[in-house]
Amino acid sequence: MDIFTDEFFMQKALHEAEVAYAKGEIPVGAVIVAGNQIIAKSHNLTEMLNDVTAHAEMQSITAAANFLGGKYLKNCTLYVTLEPCQMCAGALYWSQISKIVFGASDEHRGYRALGTKLHPKTEVIHGILEQECGDLVRKFFAERRR
Amino acid sequence: MDIFTDEFFMQKALHEAEVAYAKGEIPVGAVIVAGNQIIAKSHNLTEMLNDVTAHAEMQSITAAANFLGGKYLKNCTLYVTLEPCQMCAGALYWSQISKIVFGASDEHRGYRALGTKLHPKTEVIHGILEQECGDLVRKFFAERRR
Repeated sequence: MDIFTDEFFMQKALHEAEVAYAKGEIPVGAVIVAGNQIIAKSHNLTEMLNDVTAHAEMQSITAAANFLGGKYLKNCTLYVTLEPCQMCAGALYWSQISKIVFGASDEHRGYRALGTKLHPKTEVIHGILEQECGDLVRKFFAERRR
Repeated sequence: MDIFTDEFFMQKALHEAEVAYAKGEIPVGAVIVAGNQIIAKSHNLTEMLNDVTAHAEMQSITAAANFLGGKYLKNCTLYVTLEPCQMCAGALYWSQISKIVFGASDEHRGYRALGTKLHPKTEVIHGILEQECGDLVRKFFAERRR
């Protein structure tokens, strides 16, 4: 039995999103995996760092490249709880990452609705732990509106 | 006579691009200006940092937000020697920057060809020092091909 499923790694990304939630950040988490090893993990830190570029994906791309000692993420998979935005999809394009797995869709600011181009070699899977990943973001915004 | 023209600040961005060129980086430079003051300057460092996210614009967005103590770049202008890519345009969208001025166009990887959405409040001007900005990039790639 393979324990290293997409659900297994998405659970790790979801844990990162929960850490972001606890910090009052929009709760999005990410991990990057190479050969079943987590080589980067991160969560959104735009508020704490006062930086619109501090999305979970951007930090994991930088951390994974640091780990690998090279800037291309071939043979790597990104797990992220929410569909990447234009910026993050644009960064993933440059990284030539092999696979992207995201949980919840973002109908308004997600890269698909906005037509951002990924690298032709990048495979995409979505909907893994979709409900849990989406519920956390909805809970965050519902509380902020109160 | 106003010395603080778009050409004046683009010249500063071009100087940054020349620094990148001297380091063997794809020669793109940027500055961010608020009230005629340069609050951030940067050049592409993707090779040195082994990081596809280290475009000139991304670094300047982070640096300007640090300087301002807030993540939105309202009342700021970015000067960049080359048309922003999807990633950088996506970051500029989140920053709500007031104005983007770029020098040379990027027909293949520029945000316009790829349809990346900017913030509705962002004004765009292009073609400032276009020849000089473009020549530096063309010179870089011509030398690499040899």
